[in-house]
Amino acid sequence: MNLFYQPDLLNGTYHLNEDESHHAVKVFRLTEGDPIEITDGKGTLLTCRITKADARKCVFEITDKFIQSSKPYFIHIAIAPTKNIDRTEWFVEKAVEIGIDQISFLLCQKSERKTINLERLQKHAISAMKQSHQLILPILSPIENFFPFIKQTVADQKFIAYVDHENLHYLKDNIMKEKRYLMLIGPEGDFSKDELNHALENKFQKISLGPNRLRTETAGLAACHILNLLNQ
Amino acid sequence: MNLFYQPDLLNGTYHLNEDESHHAVKVFRLTEGDPIEITDGKGTLLTCRITKADARKCVFEITDKFIQSSKPYFIHIAIAPTKNIDRTEWFVEKAVEIGIDQISFLLCQKSERKTINLERLQKHAISAMKQSHQLILPILSPIENFFPFIKQTVADQKFIAYVDHENLHYLKDNIMKEKRYLMLIGPEGDFSKDELNHALENKFQKISLGPNRLRTETAGLAACHILNLLNQ
Repeated sequence: MNLFYQPDLLNGTYHLNEDESHHAVKVFRLTEGDPIEITDGKGTLLTCRITKADARKCVFEITDKFIQSSKPYFIHIAIAPTKNIDRTEWFVEKAVEIGIDQISFLLCQKSERKTINLERLQKHAISAMKQSHQLILPILSPIENFFPFIKQTVADQKFIAYVDHENLHYLKDNIMKEKRYLMLIGPEGDFSKDELNHALENKFQKISLGPNRLRTETAGLAACHILNLLNQ
Repeated sequence: MNLFYQPDLLNGTYHLNEDESHHAVKVFRLTEGDPIEITDGKGTLLTCRITKADARKCVFEITDKFIQSSKPYFIHIAIAPTKNIDRTEWFVEKAVEIGIDQISFLLCQKSERKTINLERLQKHAISAMKQSHQLILPILSPIENFFPFIKQTVADQKFIAYVDHENLHYLKDNIMKEKRYLMLIGPEGDFSKDELNHALENKFQKISLGPNRLRTETAGLAACHILNLLNQ
């Protein structure tokens, strides 16, 4: 059954918004009486029946309700957007499939890309959530300067991905289960020494994701996958 | 330093082929005397100096040589190519970054895509190898029918990714270290029951990659990452 997204489900909104209505009625050609599934991206899944197949405001009634039990860990990845934005979009899509709770975007000293289109990334996240039948849409936060970001963020375990061949600590060997994690992933030219030191002073652990040199978006996804795996 | 690819390094070929020569001389504008690194994609890394910066046949001399010790495991993933070939190209690129030894392409009963351009995928693999400074180029095998493929392949541990919620075995809990692994990843519509049964009869273990529903290419990469991680 197709999954649709309506963020205000629990506030008593029993219709899809315009984009989703169009998708249901024009793309999937659903009509009155057809069953659909709807999530609010916060863990709720409703089984519904269309009562008015309007392509601008598709109305439904609820036939069944399921609330996913919340998982005992939280994955927050703060990543420098890549020069080629496709790669960042790809990261968002794949991280949603694998499972992620929050994505922040970092402006670093060696960042080549200084802006992002958050709305477009949000659309990628929603589409990946629906496609992979997930019920959690991650929080996507606007791009922020590295230094203030580091100072203000809170997590149980804070990591910075930085390859130091003489002092190699793998992420997989340093994870405590069921925690709130924050992982920093640098830009194509890596974090500067200043950024690394600032993170270390703010209690981030310097870790490696494996022996291979990974691109920014691959490193982000590998980190997300490792944090999920070690909690499964 | 830029990494170039010359598959016949150890046969005494001391020049780059046309594509790579063009890249060195025209794209990177390297000239006589410039240092470069060259791999044969089989674990050898040469440090060289350009002696003739010819854009069609760039000649070099060897200044240093490094042979990577071979790793004690072998990852072979056989995957059904995706309808949208970009997703398969993406899988090849990311698997090379993460580390993979062989990729086969499967024609399954529910495959929507029945052909691939192996040469194009090969180019993606070479480019990813150079970009991520790897010394191993995976073997890429042409598309093959599922049933004969299953019969003829040999590995220490053979897995088929298939979600069976009543009988859930995670790959991460079923890997023996330092083995020759073969992992089957199905098409968008999954393997057919016939295919699954045929694999089980041929001693494949049915495993899950995690609790989430993953797209074909994400499943392939997740499997590749898990097999590498558990051997690190």
